[in-house]
Amino acid sequence: MCVNSVQVTVLVELGSVSFLTENLRMASDKSENCLGWAARDESGVLSPYEFNRRAVGKDDISVRITHCGMCYADVLYTRGKSRKSLYPVVPGHEIVGIVQEAGSDVHRFKIGDHVGVGTYVNSCRDCEYCDDGLEVHCADGIVTTFNGVDVDGTITRGGYSSFIVVHERYCYNIPDSYPLALAAPLLCAGITVYTPMIRHKMNQPGKSLGVIGLGGLGHLAVKFGKAFGLYVTVFSTSMSKKEEALTILGADNFVVSSDKEQMKTLDKSLDFIIDTASGDHIFDPYISTLKTAGVLVLVGAPNEIKLSPLNLLLGMITISGSVVGGTKRTQEMLDFCGTHKIHPEIEIIPIQSVNEALERLIKNDVKYRFVIDIENSLK
Amino acid sequence: MCVNSVQVTVLVELGSVSFLTENLRMASDKSENCLGWAARDESGVLSPYEFNRRAVGKDDISVRITHCGMCYADVLYTRGKSRKSLYPVVPGHEIVGIVQEAGSDVHRFKIGDHVGVGTYVNSCRDCEYCDDGLEVHCADGIVTTFNGVDVDGTITRGGYSSFIVVHERYCYNIPDSYPLALAAPLLCAGITVYTPMIRHKMNQPGKSLGVIGLGGLGHLAVKFGKAFGLYVTVFSTSMSKKEEALTILGADNFVVSSDKEQMKTLDKSLDFIIDTASGDHIFDPYISTLKTAGVLVLVGAPNEIKLSPLNLLLGMITISGSVVGGTKRTQEMLDFCGTHKIHPEIEIIPIQSVNEALERLIKNDVKYRFVIDIENSLK
Repeated sequence: MCVNSVQVTVLVELGSVSFLTENLRMASDKSENCLGWAARDESGVLSPYEFNRRAVGKDDISVRITHCGMCYADVLYTRGKSRKSLYPVVPGHEIVGIVQEAGSDVHRFKIGDHVGVGTYVNSCRDCEYCDDGLEVHCADGIVTTFNGVDVDGTITRGGYSSFIVVHERYCYNIPDSYPLALAAPLLCAGITVYTPMIRHKMNQPGKSLGVIGLGGLGHLAVKFGKAFGLYVTVFSTSMSKKEEALTILGADNFVVSSDKEQMKTLDKSLDFIIDTASGDHIFDPYISTLKTAGVLVLVGAPNEIKLSPLNLLLGMITISGSVVGGTKRTQEMLDFCGTHKIHPEIEIIPIQSVNEALERLIKNDVKYRFVIDIENSLK
Repeated sequence: MCVNSVQVTVLVELGSVSFLTENLRMASDKSENCLGWAARDESGVLSPYEFNRRAVGKDDISVRITHCGMCYADVLYTRGKSRKSLYPVVPGHEIVGIVQEAGSDVHRFKIGDHVGVGTYVNSCRDCEYCDDGLEVHCADGIVTTFNGVDVDGTITRGGYSSFIVVHERYCYNIPDSYPLALAAPLLCAGITVYTPMIRHKMNQPGKSLGVIGLGGLGHLAVKFGKAFGLYVTVFSTSMSKKEEALTILGADNFVVSSDKEQMKTLDKSLDFIIDTASGDHIFDPYISTLKTAGVLVLVGAPNEIKLSPLNLLLGMITISGSVVGGTKRTQEMLDFCGTHKIHPEIEIIPIQSVNEALERLIKNDVKYRFVIDIENSLK
């Protein structure tokens, strides 16, 4: 499939004629050829796909991708389940690799550096949020790492590919000696739980944390919680995860959330909860486990929140949402993981297994994050 | 109706034999006879009722009640609509009056002082919350000013009565020259909106506040908002309150919440919202008016909260509940109202009109708080 014709179609749909001209100019500049895996339609089946990345601008770095983590967003966008999918969709926004080229004005990185790219690759850089290093909340909206439309009109393509070109502002230093494969899940799952934990002051040793859901996000919330010195309780729908939660992840307590007696033992005992569950679930039983002035942070995305106001009122309870984090916080989180040796639990797969892995992701059959070995399998 | 027999009935129901003995002893000590108005059953009709207040203990003050505000809780408890109503119910927890007797160990008050009593009259005084001046969140639960069971087993009776005996800890100084009638609504409505405004840092001049609902609580939220230097928008279901909101209450903006076009003009513009509406309502349109990291505080009690998680996640929005406030905050609020001349809008009625006023309260037909002139009408 011709890249230009696809871009033209999308741009005409957007009615963005000025972008179109710019885009054709960019396309004619193509200096490199990038190999990725893309979904072409709502079947979501991925297969090899060649496309052009832009030439490295003066503020850009080009990153040879070694690994890319797999997030549930990859399922949603490849299958057309969220916003408008701009096919072909090359997913992936937990990207790590090695700098292979740097623009003339790049200050923070040099060739050979280990770097990460997360869920967004551009923002206005001029609003109050960008000025505060909270680019993810940019007043003009962010440009997502894949399935986004960049300011030059190009459709962004993610990390299921051989390299990526990104403005240095949206790239992060991976700490020395931190294994690249393990760094990948930090760029979305990690920052998604770390950001609200810092914002809501969950880094106070001796406080207690409940973690709802034990997937990619939840298992990292447990690890951060322990690193912060918290007493961590895992809420799970099934006993099957108990042994691993307590031994491998280091949680202090494990409660089956459907067991009313077990839940009752936690009545008004927790300072914080991180809710990473994306499936629909009831909230009131969890709220009952929070102390007065307790905080529940929502990072999963069920279809609806439904709860009793009385619990909120009488307990002065706070519910707060959160998505990933700004660039400053992301770098801080990576450095924290380096210092405290916080390592995600991952299953490494070759790119050729990506369709099977997406199917397993839907079934929640992964401990706890798939990471694609791009370096050794994408040829 | 004989007080002792009623108390015995309730205590036997509670299975509280040790309380019973104590209670009978207290009853035999009766040194004063108190005249109030009480509801005898779920009809909620109030009529004169005599009962005994306890003798003034060493830490107690006896307050000759001059005024009592009318809260919606008075409707709920007199009509058996909330928890168990312990008839006869003498309602009223927005109490102001003049100290007529003080115990030997009372330090903060002397005879003749103007004082207030709010929604609770006892707590354990020994838990972390009591130690922090957050008695309303006492680990053992508070003793409510009416329809509560005090530690000596007596059923508490509220401010629709000639006097009240209260431990000095739960009494507040009414600032000099602050009109007593106007002080009454501050003891529940006032502290209910003031507490979360301070807790969530709404006292930053230049920030913007939305107020949902314009009753007893809402109209005070507008006044506090203006005193804090906020830009205040009133959300109302009806245009009829516009003129008063802007002129008498001093709001800066008025929006009819059912008007989608008007609501759209507020998209992502507010720092804070105080939601005082007790009727069921949808939350998502209000959340859309909050800026990134905006805060909606719930102080009304609809039956259910239902909202879309995505709005919370993407906007890093916080929803938090709140009820009245601790003793420290209550005194601070009264002093603030004295200094800034924040005066509730009230309609003064004689006790003889209380049944009609309760009916009007149900229809929300009051601007903006009824205050009973106990001093001049309860004889």
